[in-house]
Amino acid sequence: MRTTTTMKRKAASYLFRYSRNFHSDQRLNLNHNNSRLLSGTFLCCKTPIIRDSTPISQYCRNAYHASAMNHFKMASGFQFRRFASLSSVVQRNPSFSRLNSDDIDFFRSILGEKNVVQDEDRLLDANTDWLRKYRGSSKLLLQPRSTEEVSQILKYCNSRDLPVVPQGGNTGLVGGSVPVFDEVIINLGLMNDIISFDKVSGILVCEAGGILENLSSFLDNQGFIMPLDLGAKGSCQIGGNVSTNAGGLRLVRYGSLHGSVLGLEVVLADGSVLDMLTTLRKDNTGYDLKHLFIGSEGTLGIITKISILTPSKLPATNVAFLGCKDYSSCQKLLVDAKRKLGEILSAFEFLDNMSMDVVLNHLEGTRNPLPSTMHNFYVLIETTGSNDSYDKEKLEAFLLRSMEDGLISDGVLAQDINQISSFWQIREGISEALMKAGAVYKYDLSLPVEKMYDIVEAMRTRLGNSAIVIGYGHLGDGNLHLNISTPQYDDAVLAQIEPFVYEWTSNHRGSISAEHGLGLMKANKIFYSKSPEIVQIMASIKKLLDPRGILNPYKVLPHSLGS
Amino acid sequence: MRTTTTMKRKAASYLFRYSRNFHSDQRLNLNHNNSRLLSGTFLCCKTPIIRDSTPISQYCRNAYHASAMNHFKMASGFQFRRFASLSSVVQRNPSFSRLNSDDIDFFRSILGEKNVVQDEDRLLDANTDWLRKYRGSSKLLLQPRSTEEVSQILKYCNSRDLPVVPQGGNTGLVGGSVPVFDEVIINLGLMNDIISFDKVSGILVCEAGGILENLSSFLDNQGFIMPLDLGAKGSCQIGGNVSTNAGGLRLVRYGSLHGSVLGLEVVLADGSVLDMLTTLRKDNTGYDLKHLFIGSEGTLGIITKISILTPSKLPATNVAFLGCKDYSSCQKLLVDAKRKLGEILSAFEFLDNMSMDVVLNHLEGTRNPLPSTMHNFYVLIETTGSNDSYDKEKLEAFLLRSMEDGLISDGVLAQDINQISSFWQIREGISEALMKAGAVYKYDLSLPVEKMYDIVEAMRTRLGNSAIVIGYGHLGDGNLHLNISTPQYDDAVLAQIEPFVYEWTSNHRGSISAEHGLGLMKANKIFYSKSPEIVQIMASIKKLLDPRGILNPYKVLPHSLGS
Repeated sequence: MRTTTTMKRKAASYLFRYSRNFHSDQRLNLNHNNSRLLSGTFLCCKTPIIRDSTPISQYCRNAYHASAMNHFKMASGFQFRRFASLSSVVQRNPSFSRLNSDDIDFFRSILGEKNVVQDEDRLLDANTDWLRKYRGSSKLLLQPRSTEEVSQILKYCNSRDLPVVPQGGNTGLVGGSVPVFDEVIINLGLMNDIISFDKVSGILVCEAGGILENLSSFLDNQGFIMPLDLGAKGSCQIGGNVSTNAGGLRLVRYGSLHGSVLGLEVVLADGSVLDMLTTLRKDNTGYDLKHLFIGSEGTLGIITKISILTPSKLPATNVAFLGCKDYSSCQKLLVDAKRKLGEILSAFEFLDNMSMDVVLNHLEGTRNPLPSTMHNFYVLIETTGSNDSYDKEKLEAFLLRSMEDGLISDGVLAQDINQISSFWQIREGISEALMKAGAVYKYDLSLPVEKMYDIVEAMRTRLGNSAIVIGYGHLGDGNLHLNISTPQYDDAVLAQIEPFVYEWTSNHRGSISAEHGLGLMKANKIFYSKSPEIVQIMASIKKLLDPRGILNPYKVLPHSLGS
Repeated sequence: MRTTTTMKRKAASYLFRYSRNFHSDQRLNLNHNNSRLLSGTFLCCKTPIIRDSTPISQYCRNAYHASAMNHFKMASGFQFRRFASLSSVVQRNPSFSRLNSDDIDFFRSILGEKNVVQDEDRLLDANTDWLRKYRGSSKLLLQPRSTEEVSQILKYCNSRDLPVVPQGGNTGLVGGSVPVFDEVIINLGLMNDIISFDKVSGILVCEAGGILENLSSFLDNQGFIMPLDLGAKGSCQIGGNVSTNAGGLRLVRYGSLHGSVLGLEVVLADGSVLDMLTTLRKDNTGYDLKHLFIGSEGTLGIITKISILTPSKLPATNVAFLGCKDYSSCQKLLVDAKRKLGEILSAFEFLDNMSMDVVLNHLEGTRNPLPSTMHNFYVLIETTGSNDSYDKEKLEAFLLRSMEDGLISDGVLAQDINQISSFWQIREGISEALMKAGAVYKYDLSLPVEKMYDIVEAMRTRLGNSAIVIGYGHLGDGNLHLNISTPQYDDAVLAQIEPFVYEWTSNHRGSISAEHGLGLMKANKIFYSKSPEIVQIMASIKKLLDPRGILNPYKVLPHSLGS
């Protein structure tokens, strides 16, 4: 590991430069006149970015440019500039049919005029992903209002070999929720009923199109919370959350959706409805098929209803922001926190000093809660419990012991909701700050906790002075956000990063996608995390449940296996 | 619901009679001379109880008698008398080969002489299930020491059409872990290594043959616990726990194994090894196939290694024993407990007054912790946390409020480990007390909590004076133990209970097997909990992964689908 002084000096040098170039929305407007940023054709043409035989590498470059242009359409002025993987090829499946007027007539007959959408503006939105990286050329958006309608749509599409893409809030980050070519978009947004809520067991049954934030608000009034929470909660839908096995901020406390989701109703490609919508915590009657659909990104069936176990809302939240001298101390602190705080621990996040630098330099209004000394690492600990005074006392005792043990160099405990918010702002603001700082190469990796920071150091060694390498993330979940920042996009840097980052992750038995899924972006990268035997079984199960391959084609499974 | 007085009078009447007949091991010895109990042939013949074309109903009666006889071989004198389901038929699959001397030679060549077991006494044990209800006629027990050996065995058996039954601690309750006919038994007991333990993340990786209690002891020294705990922990193996998705006492706190198990290594029927042994909390790279093997009872593959997330050991345990006036109060108390005790709640068990009666009348040394008044319902609440004084204060405050709200009629908080033990003894002693009380028909049901006690009342109405109906179980998990007690076994009573109990459970979207699995006993009952479409997909997945059907045949899937 290089010395802190060197790291900080280098960071300061870079960050100052970034700061000058990308400090505000006004600065961004200057970039509008930059010829490189204008070279993209993404929003200027009506043809899809990915055409038959178009290399993904080309697509990604175009998408990148278009993404930059798109900022000017966004009220927030927030910059989206990510860089996808190296080249690959995807071709439209020649066995798929093309949509014709008879198809439109059929869909109108079952859905009515209004929910068969051909309006160009609405289609443009539905064809384009949230990051403005991916865009398809679908000519049809369907909005079913019931499981029966979803069933009729799929039965028809299957018989006609018309491919479909299920879409929820379209907030995914890997191009899974938009068409690649001309797939029919089936948006579940109108299916947003809450079917039942059992206050005794805390079990919620709802339709797939319910927006996460709306479900959270409903539960809040009942004294419960959703077991997951995401930044995209205002738009994302629970069906999409389950289809992508969304992680989020509460995973360390409440576990993954494989534990929380109790039942599903799913429509298969042939239109048959699988009723697995139990509201039971225990059910050992045969293979638990619902797990196949959790995280399969809509490639095996369309989830239409969900039964989910929700935890009781607890009134007391406390947050501490701590400085640590090294990564080893962060790890030891995690072990102690799990033991000493165990039942009230609800978040254990970490960031390195470069992450702190980038936030302080690029996010207005942020300040270091521990300003007197720059620490090598920072840890944010959140507790959530049923009694504020008990919990605070417990946390204070833990922090005192940890300081005595030398695991914490300095720390501060939030005294009110504003301080809680400002501590979280640092951790949650890293991503936004990086966007403002320049070009950023983002990787969302799962690794064994003890190895997690090694990839950051290995990448620093590899890249030398050509980039700043930043590590932060959910230490409690073993989920690292590895981010590499450069003043501007550089193919040579990307070639240094990939496939090294995937190979390193694979060699350490990590996952190349901790919580974002594979979608289109990483479908061909699956072998870095899964063996050929496993992938072959996945393909066989896909063939079993969707023999014509109409469900969300080109996603999740490698294109060599005909996904 | 009938009046408490009537119920209690009836209970007292029955229980007194049971008490006279089955009070002690000496009383049991008298039954040895009862001609009905002697009529079984279970242990008297060397032929299997189930032969080609033998009706299960006949088998079950024989098994019952044999079971009674078997008690005299057991040091504990504990009575096993359960009654299986109504008639069905199972035939040996005619496509399976018969074992020959070449097969034995082959197995010796890969396992060595010692681990190819043909000794009759050892085979008798391995052929017979823990409840002495089921017995196969296997002539061969294999004890592999590595995944490679398991792979070689299965590859060979698959090529020869030799069926196998994977066996762990053989503590299952539904006949899943013993041969039905002459299947080769593959016992994983020699594969019991702990491969790694990460104290930072709490992730344990071990071989499938590790005994649960041994793993718990290992973790205890590291400051962690297993996320599941079972009465059978001294014998059961973690591979069997995962294969059967075992529930147990910690589920309400730590969730099911679908949440805790992070990775598996599995050998398929053709000998191929599926390496899904990740140690990651998050991994969204394709379909999560490991879930297919959790709870599939060894019919899809043999689990050889497990990666599992273990919680930190918490030092403070408190237990309260409470009286409630009605089931509605128990439900409301559960809601409040989840909210007010939330993070420290580790058990919420309930029993009705008839359960209490049977314990007090048949288990020596037990006493009612609330002796002054007989309550209609009792609730046991356990908390586990990191600080005894905080937790106890929190629990006391909760109990006080609940008494003020009228949810608790009376209650007592354990003051030491002996009182904790004596409170648990009542809840855990119900099963043993029922065995001593007479014949007992046992059902392990999952139901929505609000409906859970309705089946007890419906059954009382249905059976009238012919039996005592008792309800208790894991209220926090919606898991009811419905037990029906009669002085002696009676076909007429059984015909009143079944299929009514399964139909009622099915009509209320419950599960006919909360945590025990289907095994042989309930393979043909699967349609009470799963739709034909779901079962058909299960059968297709079975066909995909085990096309020759050699893995644990006749189990889980209905025999009509060729399981």
